[in-house]
Amino acid sequence: MRRIYFDHSATTPVHPEVAEAMYRFLTGDNFGNPSSIHYFGLQARKAVTEAREKVAQAIGASPSEIVFTSGGTEADNMAIHGAAVANRKRGNHVITSAVEHHAVLDAVKNLGKQGFEITILPVDEYGMVRVEDVEKAITDKTTLITIMHANNEVGTIMPVAEIGKLARERGIVFHVDAVQSFGKIPVNVDELGADLLSVSGHKIYGPKGVGALYVRKGTPWRQTLVFGGGQERRRRAGTENVPGIVGLGKAAELALANMEEENRKLTALRDRLIEGVLNRFEDVILTGHPEKRLPNHASFCFKYIEGESLLLSLDMKGIAVSSGSACTSGSLEPSYVLLAMGIPYELAHGSLRVTMGKDNTEEDVDYFLEVMGPVVERIRAISPLTGKTGEPSLGTAVAR
Amino acid sequence: MRRIYFDHSATTPVHPEVAEAMYRFLTGDNFGNPSSIHYFGLQARKAVTEAREKVAQAIGASPSEIVFTSGGTEADNMAIHGAAVANRKRGNHVITSAVEHHAVLDAVKNLGKQGFEITILPVDEYGMVRVEDVEKAITDKTTLITIMHANNEVGTIMPVAEIGKLARERGIVFHVDAVQSFGKIPVNVDELGADLLSVSGHKIYGPKGVGALYVRKGTPWRQTLVFGGGQERRRRAGTENVPGIVGLGKAAELALANMEEENRKLTALRDRLIEGVLNRFEDVILTGHPEKRLPNHASFCFKYIEGESLLLSLDMKGIAVSSGSACTSGSLEPSYVLLAMGIPYELAHGSLRVTMGKDNTEEDVDYFLEVMGPVVERIRAISPLTGKTGEPSLGTAVAR
Repeated sequence: MRRIYFDHSATTPVHPEVAEAMYRFLTGDNFGNPSSIHYFGLQARKAVTEAREKVAQAIGASPSEIVFTSGGTEADNMAIHGAAVANRKRGNHVITSAVEHHAVLDAVKNLGKQGFEITILPVDEYGMVRVEDVEKAITDKTTLITIMHANNEVGTIMPVAEIGKLARERGIVFHVDAVQSFGKIPVNVDELGADLLSVSGHKIYGPKGVGALYVRKGTPWRQTLVFGGGQERRRRAGTENVPGIVGLGKAAELALANMEEENRKLTALRDRLIEGVLNRFEDVILTGHPEKRLPNHASFCFKYIEGESLLLSLDMKGIAVSSGSACTSGSLEPSYVLLAMGIPYELAHGSLRVTMGKDNTEEDVDYFLEVMGPVVERIRAISPLTGKTGEPSLGTAVAR
Repeated sequence: MRRIYFDHSATTPVHPEVAEAMYRFLTGDNFGNPSSIHYFGLQARKAVTEAREKVAQAIGASPSEIVFTSGGTEADNMAIHGAAVANRKRGNHVITSAVEHHAVLDAVKNLGKQGFEITILPVDEYGMVRVEDVEKAITDKTTLITIMHANNEVGTIMPVAEIGKLARERGIVFHVDAVQSFGKIPVNVDELGADLLSVSGHKIYGPKGVGALYVRKGTPWRQTLVFGGGQERRRRAGTENVPGIVGLGKAAELALANMEEENRKLTALRDRLIEGVLNRFEDVILTGHPEKRLPNHASFCFKYIEGESLLLSLDMKGIAVSSGSACTSGSLEPSYVLLAMGIPYELAHGSLRVTMGKDNTEEDVDYFLEVMGPVVERIRAISPLTGKTGEPSLGTAVAR
């Protein structure tokens, strides 16, 4: 069967050069523990150092400001808990937004249980945080603002640089979850005004199980979650995942080198797909910002359709898409991101996310559009949600 | 140069079958996110399920009791913090030993800062925790005992089954750090009486960056450190490290299959090496228990020698050993484990750990013994510590 992978925001195939680089650190003489001071250890240490330089370079940081983690989720949690706790004497107020990834939102909510005051900002119809809302929310007690660079479900790019400026002026630590933007659009810690910034390997053709946290030199932050060995200059305990780190370094290097060209190509594919969907189908909206969105990201809500049915029907035709965030797949609840954007409950149920990648082509987009026609028609024909038989109760839809 | 790797307690080379199994999940159609419900996601999900079954089987657990982590350190921290917090209403007393790995010791000490009462038990001359000390330490408030199965620095195997029995009788949660024993000697959660048990991939010819926490069904424990997606049945947030998990599963399967034969082979090599060292050199002691020790583990303290000089000299001859735990390499302080065993400060400075693995041979051991002769002689000849010139001040030794 022809298979098209259109779910690059969930995860990406590992770039062959990345896989090869990693394989070299699984085998041969390169398997050492970077903490060992003999030959095998030094080989591993050298590889980690080189990868650190690559990741640092990709975001305009110094190598010493990069802490390798087990992924984006750990980086987000380390950033948020560590900054909140390290600044507790100065204040206990943390600001985030309603459309953050669960790794941020749940970490912040956990702070709430630990006695911190939290403000969860609303977003506009495009899923964008308003800078003025951030400004209004800041109090004397605010020590941390955490806002994502780009939203995973609707692709909207947030005004992080402006928020970073506000934070900087007031001496507030600013954390940016850049898991979705890193490798796709320029991510520069100085331009964004980020003090802490999270990235992940597996969203940029790198491996799963590895990520990094940028910690700006001098930021009042400390590691507060996992204790043990003195690895990563005491900022992340546990033997370094050397092959993973090497893979992240290589993936960051490749992403940086290919960004401009990829960005151009993906934007064209994205716009072709968005136009195709909006022209071909009735009762469908584009979700997220029409321009300020990730170059590879198209997302929609279809009326009279349940996203999961759409996803499964497309999967049977060999097309892999998502009905939202992969992390909450399987849940029957509609996306909290879409609801926060003011999209009605029943429309939010019909969400579809199509995220393209380096190996996708115009033909893939055209095939997708071709397949979508009968799929959408069939689902709507059998749907109790269809307008033709009157607006059904929500209960019916959920029970399906 | 002939290279001999004798530092398998620090880390191990990845078994070629493991590396191959992992590579398949870096490339091809197997790169999916296990949370995705399309074809690519299901391929990944299936692989994680199979790996979980293998790890469960290796320790006599049910697959649903296995939580994949980013390594042993994370597993230890999750186990300890999660059990302490989940049982806080019942009591706030935690028992551990003075010779635990930093991942356990520092996690427990962190609980101390959070208002928990902690007891750090002493050990005997072999580094072994006394069961009667555990029994005496237990109070009405004790909710967690955490004791390692085998010590990383001196190889001593602890009486965990007896401690597990005590804990079970009193309704106390028992955590076992089995990072060093798993894959080398039988680890069965029921026989050990463990409610929580940590293992790591990279100590058993598996990958770095992955481990597992066993959580016995019904154990009062919850995830308390990293928040986010609902992966691992809400017990560990973050996209699963699929290639790493596949590698851990394969490594566990191989370790189980080869354990008896490996154990026999390694015990013979170990005893040959221990005998050789004790026969050839004066002023040297075996550290750890003479019989109740890991089959691949030999450790010594040399008088009038600094462990690091020994390590570096052997490294120049192509032999990779350790002067103790890899995690604390580079520190000039002698090992806290050796000091807890009552070994004098100056003798503890001369520690050497030789940990053998599946590819080592009798010839490796003989070569090591051959090389050791002149190396030890030379270091002692130039050492200000040597007895011939009188007992020097400790400061001199440390400053070197």
